[in-house]
Amino acid sequence: MAVTKYEVRPGSYFDSVVLMQLQRSLVELPDIIDAGVVMATPANKDLLSASGLGVASSAGSDDLLIVVSAANDDVAESALTQVDELLARRRSSVTHEFRPRSLESAVEQLPSSRWVLISVPGRYAADVARTAIDLDRNVFLFSDNVPLDEELKLKNSARDKGLLVMGPDCGTAIINGIGLGFANRVGTGPIGLIGASGTGLQAIVSEIANLGSGITQAFGTGGRDLTGDIGAITTLQGLELLARDGDTKIIVIVSKPPEPKVAIEIMQAARKSGKPVVINFIGYSPPARRLGNLHFAVNLADAGQLAVDLINTLDTFNLGQDRDEAAKHTKDGYLRGLFSGGTLAYEAVTALRTYLSPLYSNVSVSGALPMQELFTSSGHTIIDLGEDDFTQGRLHPMMDNDLRIRRLLQEAKDPDVTIILLDVVLGEGAHINPVSELAPAIIEAVQISSRENRILEVVAIVIGTADDPQEIESQILELQKIGVVVFTDTIEAANYVGQRLTFVQSSKDELTSQEKFSSQFSGINVGLEIFYNSLIEQGAEAIHVDWRPPAGGNEKLMSLLAKMK
Amino acid sequence: MAVTKYEVRPGSYFDSVVLMQLQRSLVELPDIIDAGVVMATPANKDLLSASGLGVASSAGSDDLLIVVSAANDDVAESALTQVDELLARRRSSVTHEFRPRSLESAVEQLPSSRWVLISVPGRYAADVARTAIDLDRNVFLFSDNVPLDEELKLKNSARDKGLLVMGPDCGTAIINGIGLGFANRVGTGPIGLIGASGTGLQAIVSEIANLGSGITQAFGTGGRDLTGDIGAITTLQGLELLARDGDTKIIVIVSKPPEPKVAIEIMQAARKSGKPVVINFIGYSPPARRLGNLHFAVNLADAGQLAVDLINTLDTFNLGQDRDEAAKHTKDGYLRGLFSGGTLAYEAVTALRTYLSPLYSNVSVSGALPMQELFTSSGHTIIDLGEDDFTQGRLHPMMDNDLRIRRLLQEAKDPDVTIILLDVVLGEGAHINPVSELAPAIIEAVQISSRENRILEVVAIVIGTADDPQEIESQILELQKIGVVVFTDTIEAANYVGQRLTFVQSSKDELTSQEKFSSQFSGINVGLEIFYNSLIEQGAEAIHVDWRPPAGGNEKLMSLLAKMK
Repeated sequence: MAVTKYEVRPGSYFDSVVLMQLQRSLVELPDIIDAGVVMATPANKDLLSASGLGVASSAGSDDLLIVVSAANDDVAESALTQVDELLARRRSSVTHEFRPRSLESAVEQLPSSRWVLISVPGRYAADVARTAIDLDRNVFLFSDNVPLDEELKLKNSARDKGLLVMGPDCGTAIINGIGLGFANRVGTGPIGLIGASGTGLQAIVSEIANLGSGITQAFGTGGRDLTGDIGAITTLQGLELLARDGDTKIIVIVSKPPEPKVAIEIMQAARKSGKPVVINFIGYSPPARRLGNLHFAVNLADAGQLAVDLINTLDTFNLGQDRDEAAKHTKDGYLRGLFSGGTLAYEAVTALRTYLSPLYSNVSVSGALPMQELFTSSGHTIIDLGEDDFTQGRLHPMMDNDLRIRRLLQEAKDPDVTIILLDVVLGEGAHINPVSELAPAIIEAVQISSRENRILEVVAIVIGTADDPQEIESQILELQKIGVVVFTDTIEAANYVGQRLTFVQSSKDELTSQEKFSSQFSGINVGLEIFYNSLIEQGAEAIHVDWRPPAGGNEKLMSLLAKMK
Repeated sequence: MAVTKYEVRPGSYFDSVVLMQLQRSLVELPDIIDAGVVMATPANKDLLSASGLGVASSAGSDDLLIVVSAANDDVAESALTQVDELLARRRSSVTHEFRPRSLESAVEQLPSSRWVLISVPGRYAADVARTAIDLDRNVFLFSDNVPLDEELKLKNSARDKGLLVMGPDCGTAIINGIGLGFANRVGTGPIGLIGASGTGLQAIVSEIANLGSGITQAFGTGGRDLTGDIGAITTLQGLELLARDGDTKIIVIVSKPPEPKVAIEIMQAARKSGKPVVINFIGYSPPARRLGNLHFAVNLADAGQLAVDLINTLDTFNLGQDRDEAAKHTKDGYLRGLFSGGTLAYEAVTALRTYLSPLYSNVSVSGALPMQELFTSSGHTIIDLGEDDFTQGRLHPMMDNDLRIRRLLQEAKDPDVTIILLDVVLGEGAHINPVSELAPAIIEAVQISSRENRILEVVAIVIGTADDPQEIESQILELQKIGVVVFTDTIEAANYVGQRLTFVQSSKDELTSQEKFSSQFSGINVGLEIFYNSLIEQGAEAIHVDWRPPAGGNEKLMSLLAKMK
């Protein structure tokens, strides 16, 4: 009959590698059935129970709980008495070398270091990160359980100094070819990545490597960067760095579900990078496979494949072309979209929100603001005139053009309006010749604006088939004859309009200093020694800080721990 | 100086075509500047104001408001006195013919009719639809403003009789080549469609026609069919009809943003159809471009193109193959996924929710239920072991396999578990040889289950590159040697597991009688005469009911209206 014995060592800091190794050493002792060495959090106590190592101990989250299950009492007791010895045994296998005890002295020892890797427990992590920023170093913050307001303060102060804070809870980054945290080995290539998802970055980087390509940088941001609270500070910094980096030809952004308004902000920033950007916002519905320079992936493998596929089209895809074309033809002023088809209006909004901000609509889509006044537009606005508000006791706008014509003339009188977007839906049930009524109104609208020395452009989406009673070809021809730009696909039309109204220019703000990332990687590690070893194995210049929590704790184990390091 | 005069005709029913025509006739009178003829809802009064036709009238939603703007008082007054005459004038252009006054007599007159098209005002529509169902007819319900509980009652009673209710607020359908409501003309072909979005259906059907292909049926459902309240009654009926229809080789489903749990239900039903199904849930994030027989479109044009592309692969894509293969190798029992990578777990859930229900997870994704007990699994479960609950004071499972091995053995002891899914993430920072620890545990897990005469299958996703320190090839080989099925992409692995656990059989329930849709279209129209004319022009057998609201209203205008019809 197995017996279970346990020991509690209250209140102190323990490196989780040490805990793992102690547990393994205990299990390897003769006649020991199982062992558990954990900080006594409620979850960890449940886990012990699930493994048949449950004990009735009142130990708490700051206490170390050591449990052994053995064939009999003596074996169990004897195992527990060996704990100190087992911890000490590891000591002999560790080479002694001089290690700084503080970040400050580490920086003096390795002045070329530009990065500090932090993997100490969450409650100490923000303080260490703050010191790193004060010392003008970029931060890779692996630690989790850092409060949100601390994250915001750290990221803001880092940005002010042109520094990056990747994390907290940042699992993965690759800087100048050196992997930080969990990172796959990948060669140099034209793809730069930004990830608010550690394994997301790993899966995409692996896909890129396995497809024979490589990367410039892979910036991690931590999982909360794309929340409204943080506002994508690190993601936007990374985007700006990659946009200005001559070696980066293609950018990939991957994130766990982002806050919709933050997603929009990133898409608009990505738009202005002028480079092809592959976006994989997990759980976020992509409006198209491609919208201008934005390419939308549906999953991680797809993102890697899209990025590599884009390399092969780089020769034909003049990087500046999209931007230059758009800039050349760009116009100021507002768009007014007057739709008869609800789903077409919806599609137009999903595409246009990646270009225009703020965008108003009576269609409810994240990224669009509700119209303030239904009968008077302001700013960029997409209106679904088939909504109940407009059709009570009235024919649907596909049948009766009256309402749309009135609104068209009303919009034309607004001096800020430069583009009007209309859908024309043909087929059974619809007006038998909608263009015969819309064309004179369009001409009148253009005249209204030209009398005031404005140029009003009208763009139309015509949906229909060659067999429809309205004769689609002549409907399109009649529109083109009076200067209307005609599309047969809403997304394409929205993409055209978006590009016309989006002025793209290279960012000139030195948000983050490029120079800091151009040199060879050199870093300081604070926390898990595993990560220091990893840096050295990768050939990086690195130094490990013999860090210990500022406040006391269990003196006995602390001194043991100190000997082990 | 223009003057505005108005007249109110209180409380009655007016066909909106009549209102439109009266307004046009008034505008065409000499010296009339503008006119408005609307039911005096608040929105319509705002619209009049926006057109410069605002009047201070207390008329309400049930009242007709006639407004004219003219050069002077006399012209305006004279126009208003001509209203009755203008209404009467149209009479002469309408040919007289015998028309039934009720649906009952229409059915007697056209016993072959299988459909009733209803476009009367919302408050009368449910009653008419109920009568149609009582008369054993399918319903196309164009009317909007039908209460939700009425919709549910109508759809339930229709389904019980093997009938369809498309709508309310159904804009578009094409039945046996005849367009109902707004519909584009398209030839016959192998694609069957279901749409909870009228213009969505129109755009996809047009795309299909313009790409040279055609359709079997296009069922509309009304925009609320995919809400939790209605539970996709019509969509599921349509899916079942198309699944059993020999002429339909490919199915397309389009919908405005569906309620997540309803989306899952439809995807699982689509899965069981055994046919390629193109899904375009607008605003819903697709887990992949393809998952088994499900193909995910990102927008309307994409949906049409995907469907037509699939035709070209039909020869090589044996329709029964996927289903037969899956059925042949299908196994009962539950899946347990034990993940170290959070985003990989997330991707697995997004894919597996289209196969398995209920699916539990500690990853928050719509379509997955939260785990009831974190330390004991039940049913199909995907666990992210990298979540905070599992990593407090403990190394991440990518570094330390202990927790995962314990859980693996725990799951193996559960007699209902037949598949275990693991990720193995390689690279810097990760365990230097994870398979050396996982393999013995996997062997032990398989032995545990085989001792109880069960066959436990283990599936692994290995993420990494050829240059990673763990040597990915040997990691994969070692896993394969002990019988693990290995993938390098989460979606592919989830797809495999999903197919293994999904038993597909042809539906045998006669939810909706196929026979009712196989004959030539024959229908009865109640409401807008436009739709009757459209049916006749399309060569359909049809009859128009001279419908009037059951309760009185304005007697004078009612009698005029009657003469016009």
